[in-house]
Amino acid sequence: MTYCVGLKIDRGLVFMSDTRTNAGIDSISTFRKMHVWEEPGERVLVLMSAGNLATTQAVVSLLDERSKAVSDRSHTLLETPSMYQTAALVGSVVKEVIANASPTGQSADSYFNASFVLGGQIRGTEPRLFMIYPEGNFIESTEDTPFFQVGETKYGKPILVRAYDKTMSFAETVKLLMVSFDSTLKSNLSVGLPLDLTFYEKDTFKVGLQRRINQDDPYYRQISEGWSDALKMAFKSLPDFVE
Amino acid sequence: MTYCVGLKIDRGLVFMSDTRTNAGIDSISTFRKMHVWEEPGERVLVLMSAGNLATTQAVVSLLDERSKAVSDRSHTLLETPSMYQTAALVGSVVKEVIANASPTGQSADSYFNASFVLGGQIRGTEPRLFMIYPEGNFIESTEDTPFFQVGETKYGKPILVRAYDKTMSFAETVKLLMVSFDSTLKSNLSVGLPLDLTFYEKDTFKVGLQRRINQDDPYYRQISEGWSDALKMAFKSLPDFVE
Repeated sequence: MTYCVGLKIDRGLVFMSDTRTNAGIDSISTFRKMHVWEEPGERVLVLMSAGNLATTQAVVSLLDERSKAVSDRSHTLLETPSMYQTAALVGSVVKEVIANASPTGQSADSYFNASFVLGGQIRGTEPRLFMIYPEGNFIESTEDTPFFQVGETKYGKPILVRAYDKTMSFAETVKLLMVSFDSTLKSNLSVGLPLDLTFYEKDTFKVGLQRRINQDDPYYRQISEGWSDALKMAFKSLPDFVE
Repeated sequence: MTYCVGLKIDRGLVFMSDTRTNAGIDSISTFRKMHVWEEPGERVLVLMSAGNLATTQAVVSLLDERSKAVSDRSHTLLETPSMYQTAALVGSVVKEVIANASPTGQSADSYFNASFVLGGQIRGTEPRLFMIYPEGNFIESTEDTPFFQVGETKYGKPILVRAYDKTMSFAETVKLLMVSFDSTLKSNLSVGLPLDLTFYEKDTFKVGLQRRINQDDPYYRQISEGWSDALKMAFKSLPDFVE
């Protein structure tokens, strides 16, 4: 499967995704699931995907290809007037790709579905974060629901729910995401290292830190081992049950 | 949905289940999912169920009814010679119930499937813990996999994986289960209070503590609130990311 989280904080947006794809447990590969488009000073868009790899690659390829055909840029990722329009554009491409795959050719055991998290900022507007469904429609994050997960979302949700705070720094946000990913990695084989990380700092209109986190990344190891111990300590600190 | 955990420790077996059933989110009820059979000095059996409520109730009713028909007890819950045979008996009733429901009458949107956790001890044998599938076959816990979850298992798994230790006391085990259930309750509406708790202490051949845990149970509240704080403290204790 996949695990991707996009998170909105006061300072901007943070994205993290894993890179494992699998078609059965004996067919495992590494693919980047985070795609970034940047027009410095104008717009930054980050798109993460979960679901059928043929679908997600087709969506990204079409979006990318069209944004490079300068003759008709008006309906492309680099020319949409707002993040809302951008989400609608991605949604329409998702619908197009899934519709093309479904009715013809051999039918597959699995669906062609895919879900996306889209975040970014376009000059003149605020940073926004969307979740786009296989049907092409989408929802936007709010103060109450400031993050979106796609893929294998359950293992890593409890810590996000409890420790998220919109005033967090980028450094704290990465720590939170690392813990959420580590809980998922430890419980589910279909989510795997390396991880991709991208910051976007509000009103900079350029991509912030981009980092690939491998198995031997010292910070990842520190969090992974430290969290086991910290969790055990936290657990020990609670009172035992008395009959 | 449902969340049930059966856990084997050196001292015996511990079972916890929620009580929420739902058919759509606007049709929520409370049903006991933990069923205990006891023949003092001889055997204790605990069965927990997740899945279609009509199926799980039918399975429990049939098992119960047959164990009371004294004339032919040889193939009943109270006369099986081993836990293995008991698991096989439950599995065969599961198959029978699902087979009866499936091919006739109106077809339903959802399946008639159900999964079960069965644990207990029969005099002359060790305590054993099984997970029984809708197909009627089953697996047994081992040192490597000392617990089984059924229902909404993902949210509460990371803490079980990290904090379980087979030398735990009953009191510590209840704490562990409370944290696992609390993480699930906070993330998923289909799992709900009250919770049912049962201990079985090895070689006693009688049911240990049985307790229903409500919303206003002081220990539950202490764990639920304490765990939020302890988790935040644990999280703060880890080093922040440095670019």
